[in-house]
Amino acid sequence: MNEQNGQKQNRPPESIADMGEFGLIEYLTSDISIQNETTVKAIGDDAAVLDAKEKLTLVTSDMLVENVHFDLSYFPLKHLGYKTAVVNFSDVYAMNGYPGQLLIDIAVSNRFTPEALEEFYTGLKMAARRYGVDIVGGDTVSSQKGMILSGTAIGYTEKDKVVYRKGARPNDLLVVTGDLGAAYAGLLILLREKETFLANPQHQPDLTPYSYVVERQLKPEARKDAIDWLRTHDVLPTSMIDISDGLSSEVIHLTRASGYGVEIFEEKIPIAAETVPALEEFNIHPVTGAMNGGEDYELLFSISQKDYEKIKNVPGFHIIGYFTEDPGAFLITQAGKKVEIQAQGWNAFSNRNKSE
Amino acid sequence: MNEQNGQKQNRPPESIADMGEFGLIEYLTSDISIQNETTVKAIGDDAAVLDAKEKLTLVTSDMLVENVHFDLSYFPLKHLGYKTAVVNFSDVYAMNGYPGQLLIDIAVSNRFTPEALEEFYTGLKMAARRYGVDIVGGDTVSSQKGMILSGTAIGYTEKDKVVYRKGARPNDLLVVTGDLGAAYAGLLILLREKETFLANPQHQPDLTPYSYVVERQLKPEARKDAIDWLRTHDVLPTSMIDISDGLSSEVIHLTRASGYGVEIFEEKIPIAAETVPALEEFNIHPVTGAMNGGEDYELLFSISQKDYEKIKNVPGFHIIGYFTEDPGAFLITQAGKKVEIQAQGWNAFSNRNKSE
Repeated sequence: MNEQNGQKQNRPPESIADMGEFGLIEYLTSDISIQNETTVKAIGDDAAVLDAKEKLTLVTSDMLVENVHFDLSYFPLKHLGYKTAVVNFSDVYAMNGYPGQLLIDIAVSNRFTPEALEEFYTGLKMAARRYGVDIVGGDTVSSQKGMILSGTAIGYTEKDKVVYRKGARPNDLLVVTGDLGAAYAGLLILLREKETFLANPQHQPDLTPYSYVVERQLKPEARKDAIDWLRTHDVLPTSMIDISDGLSSEVIHLTRASGYGVEIFEEKIPIAAETVPALEEFNIHPVTGAMNGGEDYELLFSISQKDYEKIKNVPGFHIIGYFTEDPGAFLITQAGKKVEIQAQGWNAFSNRNKSE
Repeated sequence: MNEQNGQKQNRPPESIADMGEFGLIEYLTSDISIQNETTVKAIGDDAAVLDAKEKLTLVTSDMLVENVHFDLSYFPLKHLGYKTAVVNFSDVYAMNGYPGQLLIDIAVSNRFTPEALEEFYTGLKMAARRYGVDIVGGDTVSSQKGMILSGTAIGYTEKDKVVYRKGARPNDLLVVTGDLGAAYAGLLILLREKETFLANPQHQPDLTPYSYVVERQLKPEARKDAIDWLRTHDVLPTSMIDISDGLSSEVIHLTRASGYGVEIFEEKIPIAAETVPALEEFNIHPVTGAMNGGEDYELLFSISQKDYEKIKNVPGFHIIGYFTEDPGAFLITQAGKKVEIQAQGWNAFSNRNKSE
């Protein structure tokens, strides 16, 4: 962690088995300081102690399994730590709240060194600092094989500001932040590079043309800035969700939860200029990648028509459709055809199944 | 779940891969109802929404890995579900709080059927009902190998009632609930039966003489009743911890956190009559088993001398020693010898290392 921390330099850890569970947790977490007044007691007791201060508490948990959700052959541990934190924070923002604390459970086999875990923690701490979140606990145990991560984020929102998946009404506008499909394009590039490397270990990859999409896969950000904007401008979405499994899947969640339908205009779906050629290299239509790719961690929300003027020219907010009385989720293509949207997002129990 | 639930009978699930993540979560959680007013929104959104109602919130997380923390060859899945919940609740009671919610992350390989996961959930729900806790979320994903569980419990306590590991003062009395060493004895019995079965699959085990210790291993309970008693009788411990790694390890935690020392009287350590012969079959001194066994999930706490009269005759509360000005944790043997206590509890990164 800190080069100037003499104590650590004097005790170079040899293996996680030598350190033991308590020694390892101490090694990884000793430099963590507390930044939130909602954190009363962090690491070091039977439970963390938090004070919601009359707000509602939001709790969300995500599990990430090596070689199912991430591949360490191309995913640096520091980025993995960052991403593990961010995907949980994203779920808290999707409730219109702010994350305050993170707990992280890690199971690792003995092939991982203390330095490797420290890399992971460095990323975790970077994300925690950037998003103003305290790391308050978790468990670090042995696995028989590979690395399994379980992150739990705790956040807060005022009682009159919590936004659910349900709540959209007919004529509400559907808004998405940022751009879609890039994280999936980045994944495809990384998988291709891995194949190339396995076939020819001398191969030197040049990822420069793909830097945007690769970064979207390896170092996603959660849209704290969008929540800040909504609050500053007094806009309360009528429903909201974050895009982890793909726009199709999330739109269907919002329609089912509301009991109403949605129409999305194909030409309104935001796709970054860098994403289009990357997806086309794999013969994937950019809109298909945007609809079904997943892992973008953008926010998808509905607003009342009365907020249209406030939102219409905000950079990074894209009005892509509107809610309808009739149920069902439909895409209005550029040719004017109305196509029902099917969820083709990622199924954690089959293979990654995002391409056509 | 419910035999009369016709919908489930009509759709017999074939494999977890066929069901997909959302289908599986729906299958496992559709009959869960909410019992706590602190639960505003449970499963089905980006995050659970909780209302601490001016209390402090307690959060704790534990990870359990197949063949590291449990062995399904002798650990029934229903019991595993129950235990996964209880070990997390125990950490909340150890803060002098009450658990209100549970999140459960599960990674399983495709060798697990939906029915197997339903067994696990049946145990989880039994524990949730018994302890008055709502299951409010979690993630269910695919693993490459085996079953990995991560439970997160959320609980509540009044601001003036939270009890930490730190806080004991010299002359405070050290109290332990229930009896110790039985869960470890049960583990040894189950491991021996497994060996016998592997050598001779016709072998019919008779666990009757060991039913108490085996149940303490397979179906531990958390000491809600002790917290109830302390509150009813207006006793606020000065420090508290639950016994998951063994009395030795937990006593050392309390002394280090307080900055003071402890003396424990060997003859006061509570060991059940059934535990003594079970440990002796493995040539383990009962006191050694009680000190280093772990997994008892009893509560260890300190009280001020002023509360001695209230507590001295309470069944199941055992005063085993007292805090001293001088640091260090010591055992006063029956022969009057003073021996320093070493933590020999379980190290999650080496092997189970509880026997001598």
